[in-house]
Amino acid sequence: MPELRKDPVLSRWIIIATERRQRPSDFLIEQPVTKSGGFCPLCAGHEQTTPTEVWACRLGGNQTPNSPDWQVRVVPNKYPALRIEGSLDKRGEGIYDRMNGVGAHEVIVESPNHDDQFAYLPPDKIFYVLLAYRERILDLQKDPRFGYVMIFKNHGRAAGASLEHSHSQLVALPVIPQLISAEMDGAASYYRFRERCIFCDMIAQEIYQDVRVVGQNDDFIVISPYAPRTPFEMWVLPKEHEAAYRHQSDKSLVSLAMILSETLRRLDAIIPGVPYNFVLHTSPLRASCSDHYHWHLEIVPKLTSIAGFEWGSGFYINPMPPEEATRHMKDAKL
Amino acid sequence: MPELRKDPVLSRWIIIATERRQRPSDFLIEQPVTKSGGFCPLCAGHEQTTPTEVWACRLGGNQTPNSPDWQVRVVPNKYPALRIEGSLDKRGEGIYDRMNGVGAHEVIVESPNHDDQFAYLPPDKIFYVLLAYRERILDLQKDPRFGYVMIFKNHGRAAGASLEHSHSQLVALPVIPQLISAEMDGAASYYRFRERCIFCDMIAQEIYQDVRVVGQNDDFIVISPYAPRTPFEMWVLPKEHEAAYRHQSDKSLVSLAMILSETLRRLDAIIPGVPYNFVLHTSPLRASCSDHYHWHLEIVPKLTSIAGFEWGSGFYINPMPPEEATRHMKDAKL
Repeated sequence: MPELRKDPVLSRWIIIATERRQRPSDFLIEQPVTKSGGFCPLCAGHEQTTPTEVWACRLGGNQTPNSPDWQVRVVPNKYPALRIEGSLDKRGEGIYDRMNGVGAHEVIVESPNHDDQFAYLPPDKIFYVLLAYRERILDLQKDPRFGYVMIFKNHGRAAGASLEHSHSQLVALPVIPQLISAEMDGAASYYRFRERCIFCDMIAQEIYQDVRVVGQNDDFIVISPYAPRTPFEMWVLPKEHEAAYRHQSDKSLVSLAMILSETLRRLDAIIPGVPYNFVLHTSPLRASCSDHYHWHLEIVPKLTSIAGFEWGSGFYINPMPPEEATRHMKDAKL
Repeated sequence: MPELRKDPVLSRWIIIATERRQRPSDFLIEQPVTKSGGFCPLCAGHEQTTPTEVWACRLGGNQTPNSPDWQVRVVPNKYPALRIEGSLDKRGEGIYDRMNGVGAHEVIVESPNHDDQFAYLPPDKIFYVLLAYRERILDLQKDPRFGYVMIFKNHGRAAGASLEHSHSQLVALPVIPQLISAEMDGAASYYRFRERCIFCDMIAQEIYQDVRVVGQNDDFIVISPYAPRTPFEMWVLPKEHEAAYRHQSDKSLVSLAMILSETLRRLDAIIPGVPYNFVLHTSPLRASCSDHYHWHLEIVPKLTSIAGFEWGSGFYINPMPPEEATRHMKDAKL
C-alpha cells in the first residue's frame, strides 16, 4: 500500500509509492518510451489493454464504454502512485505524520492517434481534454476522502513523460500540495490587507504595463510572470475572478483551448521540441477561498540548463527576463 | 545588471541573470563540459585564467596568492549570477518588488587535479573544502548588504554541473531563499509550541527508532528523512544543537569530512556515477533563530525518473521508502 508522509518542518506531503519500487541500480536507466511503431496501450483499438475507462468523449452514435470511437479517454493509471480502495487512516509516529495512500491516479489520453501532439491538436479537440479535466474533478469531488485534485502534463522525456502517446495525468489527494497551500496563504494575506484578489490585481497591472502579456482573448490572459523560475515560464489566468477550475463553463473552456493551443505552438516555434510541464493550480475541493484564490495554469518549460540545486533550495537563477521572453513569444512565426 | 525579483504570492525571490542571456534556441543545446584532456581553467597551473582568488589553502611555505601550490582555491565566478559592486536599491513596481542584483558568486575548486572526484578525496582534503565554506561565510558576513550565504554542489551533468573539474559554488544574497525561510517558520512554530528544536527532536527519534539512520559518528548523524522527495535523499546534521554552520570548530569539520565522504562513497557504490546536488541549509547571517534552527546538509540525488512537474507543484512521488534506502546504504560495499 502506498503511503503519504509529511515533512514535520515544512508540512510538505509526499507519496511513498512502494508499488513502483525499483532496485537502486534501476534509477539511472532511462525509462522506456513507447516508440512509434511499437505497441502503445493508449492508442485507439487497444482499449482492452488499459484498466476500464472512467470517462470518455465519443461524438458518434456509438457510446459503448471501452469501444474505439473516442476523442479523449480517461483511464485509471495501471501503475498508480495511490490506491482508490480503503479509508483514510491518519496516524502519528512520534513527531511525524503519515496516512495510508488513498487516492486516484488517472491518465487523460488526449487523442486516439499515437503521433498527435497536444499543442498541434485542433482547438476543438483540446477543448475535449479541458472538459475531461473539469468532469473528472466534479466527479472526484463527490468522494469525501479527497481534498485536492492535481492535474498536470509532462511533455517530452526531459519533462518526465514515460509514454510517447500524448496524455496528461490526474492525482486525487486527501491532502493539499504544498505549493498550493503556500499560494492560498499568500493570497489570503494580501486579501486581508487590501480586500482584493492578488491575481486580479496582477492581471490589471499586467494589462496596464503591457510588457509581459503574451496573449489574451475575451476570457483569458497569458503572462510571463514577473518572477519566473525558468526561461519562458508562463501562466494562463481567467480574466474574470474564479477560484475553481471546476466552475468554468463550456464556453470559457473553448476560449481556454484556443489560447492554450496558440501559446504552446508559439513556444514550440521558438524552441522546437521543447519539453515542458503544465500544472493546473486550482482551489481545493473543500476550502473556502473563493474570494482570494484565482485558478490558473502554469506552463514550465524544462530546459537542460536548469541546475538541480534550484528545486532543492527554492531559489532560482533565470537567464531570461520575462519581458524578453514575452517579445520572443509575440514574434514567433506560427 | 542582474536583478532580484519577488513573486508577490509566494514571496519567492529569483535572480534574473541577464549577464547569462542566451538566445531561445540555445536553451536546448547541452552546456559544454570541459573534457579530460581539454583546457580546464580550474586546474592547477591555470590560476591566471580565473579571476583573482579570494581564499586558498596552501600547505607548503609558498603562500603567494594565485600561485599553483594550493589544495583548495576559491575564486569569483567568471560568469556571476550576481554582481559584487553597488548598493542595494530596493524598489516597488506596483504590486511587485525588485532589487538590483548585488551579491557574490564564487567557485570553490575542491582539488588541483582535474580527475579527482569529491567523494573520493581523502577526508583531510574534504576538510579543507568544508573549511573554505566556513571561512568564506565568515568573511562575507562582514558585508552588511548580505543576508544569506548559499553553498551548494552540483555533481554530474544531470545535476547541473557545467564544468567537469570538481567544484562547489557559493552565492551571497541580500535575501533569504524561500525554502530556508519556510524551514525557519516551521521550526519556530514547533519551538513556540514545545520549547524544543524540531531537528533535535528528530535526531532523538531517529536514533531511538534506528530505521533511517544511515551512519553516525561522535559529532554527526546521517539520516534518510522521513518524507524524502527523491530516492536516497539524505540529511547530515550535527548532533549537538547549532543553528549556524559558520560556528563549527575545525575539529567538528574534520568529523563532518569523514562522514560526508563515507556517505557519498556509499551512494556512489549503490548507484555508480550517481549525479547529485547537495545544499547547505544554515541560519541567515543576521537572523535570531539560534534556539530553534539547526543547520544541516541536504544531499539530493538527481535521478532521471523524477518528473519535472514535481518541483513545479511542490508535490513529490518517491518510489523508494527511506527505510529501504537506509538498508541499501548500510549494505553498500566500500
